[in-house]
Amino acid sequence: MAKEITPRSDDYSQWYLDIVRKAGLADNSPVRGCMVIKPNGFGIWERMRDALDAMFKETGHVNAYFPLFIPKSFLSKEAAHVEGFAKECAVVTHYRLKNDPDGGGVIVDPEAKLEEELIVRPTSETIIWNTYRDWIQSYRDLPLLINQWANVVRWEMRTRPFLRTAEFLWQEGHTAHASADEAMSETRLILDLYARFAEEWMAMPVIKGVKTPNERFAGAEDTFCIEALMQDGKALQAGTSHFLGQNFARAFDVFFLNKDNQQELVWATSWGVSTRLVGGLIMTHSDDDGLVVPPKLAPVQVVIVPIPKPSPELDEAAAKIAADLRAKNIRVKIDNDDQNRPGFKFAEYEMIGVPVRLGLGQRDLAANQVEVARRDTKEKANVPLDGLADHIAALLDDIQQSLFDRAKAYRDAHITKADTWAELEDILENKGGFAYAHWDGTTETELEIKEKTKATIRCIPLDWPEETGKCILTGKSSERRVLFARAY
Amino acid sequence: MAKEITPRSDDYSQWYLDIVRKAGLADNSPVRGCMVIKPNGFGIWERMRDALDAMFKETGHVNAYFPLFIPKSFLSKEAAHVEGFAKECAVVTHYRLKNDPDGGGVIVDPEAKLEEELIVRPTSETIIWNTYRDWIQSYRDLPLLINQWANVVRWEMRTRPFLRTAEFLWQEGHTAHASADEAMSETRLILDLYARFAEEWMAMPVIKGVKTPNERFAGAEDTFCIEALMQDGKALQAGTSHFLGQNFARAFDVFFLNKDNQQELVWATSWGVSTRLVGGLIMTHSDDDGLVVPPKLAPVQVVIVPIPKPSPELDEAAAKIAADLRAKNIRVKIDNDDQNRPGFKFAEYEMIGVPVRLGLGQRDLAANQVEVARRDTKEKANVPLDGLADHIAALLDDIQQSLFDRAKAYRDAHITKADTWAELEDILENKGGFAYAHWDGTTETELEIKEKTKATIRCIPLDWPEETGKCILTGKSSERRVLFARAY
Repeated sequence: MAKEITPRSDDYSQWYLDIVRKAGLADNSPVRGCMVIKPNGFGIWERMRDALDAMFKETGHVNAYFPLFIPKSFLSKEAAHVEGFAKECAVVTHYRLKNDPDGGGVIVDPEAKLEEELIVRPTSETIIWNTYRDWIQSYRDLPLLINQWANVVRWEMRTRPFLRTAEFLWQEGHTAHASADEAMSETRLILDLYARFAEEWMAMPVIKGVKTPNERFAGAEDTFCIEALMQDGKALQAGTSHFLGQNFARAFDVFFLNKDNQQELVWATSWGVSTRLVGGLIMTHSDDDGLVVPPKLAPVQVVIVPIPKPSPELDEAAAKIAADLRAKNIRVKIDNDDQNRPGFKFAEYEMIGVPVRLGLGQRDLAANQVEVARRDTKEKANVPLDGLADHIAALLDDIQQSLFDRAKAYRDAHITKADTWAELEDILENKGGFAYAHWDGTTETELEIKEKTKATIRCIPLDWPEETGKCILTGKSSERRVLFARAY
Repeated sequence: MAKEITPRSDDYSQWYLDIVRKAGLADNSPVRGCMVIKPNGFGIWERMRDALDAMFKETGHVNAYFPLFIPKSFLSKEAAHVEGFAKECAVVTHYRLKNDPDGGGVIVDPEAKLEEELIVRPTSETIIWNTYRDWIQSYRDLPLLINQWANVVRWEMRTRPFLRTAEFLWQEGHTAHASADEAMSETRLILDLYARFAEEWMAMPVIKGVKTPNERFAGAEDTFCIEALMQDGKALQAGTSHFLGQNFARAFDVFFLNKDNQQELVWATSWGVSTRLVGGLIMTHSDDDGLVVPPKLAPVQVVIVPIPKPSPELDEAAAKIAADLRAKNIRVKIDNDDQNRPGFKFAEYEMIGVPVRLGLGQRDLAANQVEVARRDTKEKANVPLDGLADHIAALLDDIQQSLFDRAKAYRDAHITKADTWAELEDILENKGGFAYAHWDGTTETELEIKEKTKATIRCIPLDWPEETGKCILTGKSSERRVLFARAY
């Protein structure tokens, strides 16, 4: 199995595609740019979704569902939004097919043309704020803290499974507030929540920051983000939280009566993470033998493999171990396949990233022990059956923490201060990762640096020490350093 | 509040729309036939989804996700399927908008026309079986037990919230098997699972049956269903499970190598339930004061209302009660609004269907008791604070059971044997519910009865006593009675 994976050192991009395919995460589909998310991949996304959903609910959010389709005219209502978004969309123009009179299957019925075309949502600010106009009358209706889990479509020309697909799954939060302060607090609350999720569940360290005006979401007044670093030194934007000001309220006439009985425009936020996170997970932890999944997100955390194959005695012992582990809420699979050899199975479970493998043979059983192998480090140890469940629970915690520590050490080692143009180029070209450099604050300079280096300003990190200096390109005075990187 | 609801006796259809609106379940949207599912409605659907998802997983199914779009040509591949489905669909013809050169917002870019139109999935058999061709090689790849939670679109002209909408949310299971027997067992397993869900979670009694050939799913060899009865005497198809034979495998060339090393076509099932169930829930239990929700599906099971309004002492007592209830996994809300009066709040919680209301006043507290009101019967009782959590847990179980018993008594009283045409007409026109009558087994007769009475054969019930007789319309010999009803 594993030998079919291209090593990362040969071709990181092909390694990624090999992992996606060999670990059963996703498949291409006959529809350009759309992927099929296979059970192994969807199992990871489901756990991400459940964890995030619980965090949203703990912070007072509720779920709702808005239409898949957006009337074309809605997109034009917020000027900046339409500039940033409206172009590459799936457009529904007809609502009926009919039998081809020439016998060639079905054709679009020309008589069933829509009066106004519908756009498959690329994001839902417009239709949601059009709805909020009816839901919000007074300050007593605020805040409105709503999230939806949905599919969205952006017609991408160059796609990559999970990282960039025409259709993807995501959550989009859309909140409404009575003041700018409250909306900004919400924006930051969600940013912190995303960072906590990335680090505690995905074991993926992230930098919280704010985007430059050039990188803002179309229609936002401020875009905050979490940025992660992949193993090849490229950055990945893993989630965004937008302070939308009153832009969408203005575009859709959403006013509220404040405590002083005066009409005011409502303040807004929106925020989202997507199935892109699965791509980030793969590229943060996996190795040349396959997928590595942090235990908290692994659909199966422990697999028990009878050695050399299932037998009544081994099955009974495996069932007992599984019951003990399940009593501690550990997700266990017993491999009762009697065709393949242990070596084949071991490679397969390494490929799909099961965090812990228990090898259970007759001699182990006689010695009242089991062989425990961890996926991340490949270490093996014989562990007594007495107290095994506690041992495994602790081991899963340890793996979760080790993965984070390892990713963080790599990430920290790849944040490099650049004080000259040559240093910046060297970092981006040879070392990879983030270059932390001064910038004069203009979009013009930002674009010129991007043109010259293919690197973008990933973010201005929050709460990092302030430091003035000179712009790495223009030499003009700079208020702070920012993080440059090439990115997915 | 409640006085704004049209009584059921005046206009059942308007009563339904009033409940949907007043209980905050759904809203119309600017997109024809598409609804917005509001938080109260989505909260119920979420609990349905979670319960069903757990049942699917317990029976070995896993989730995956397939594309929203289906190439138009796929629909023509299974002849019966295209006849039954392909007509009323949303058709994507273009993939880009551009700025209107005349300044009128955005227009569809005529240069961005798709070579082949894409259909927004009305159901996913075709794209899934096209994918299964790559996933299935040998009997060792079977069975494949996959489900997806998704949105689908069928361009309905006459829509009703939840019951019939252009876009709706559902789950669709698509399984692949090595034999007809296995596929049929799966079809029946899911039928039983749906029936158990409807009865145990929704407290909605259902009849398990098989559809006549005329009412089968397009492309199925047999369609099984669960049928429920609404309060107005109309039936509701609440879920279907299809035995697809080898039809889709044949259409998409999906073969497997059997144990004898021979190529065979794969056997298939598909099955689904949708947000339509929310409509069924409303029409099974609710009354003229608002929504009634079975406790197992209620987003909030118990609300604590301080009387006449919050105070430090009442808040402290409410918090303690809530903590005790939550320790028993009961979902509790404390109403800490200090503007509205208790009477207003009581009406509001009746409207949204919170199963149990606790009224907590100063005198109650002094007497170490609380007023407990149940939504279904409106009964009130003073209950000691000692042991309150146990009392409430038992009460929630009792409400769940009572709702089922009440609905079942109504349903059972509305299954009426009809032995003459006059009896059939009388039942359908005056009494409502199911007429259990003989039918000669031909589609011709079925359609003529539908034409004359607006009633359809809801199903041939499974495992009901066999009985021969004479067809209620034609007088020809009949093998069994079937259930006729007008239906949603």
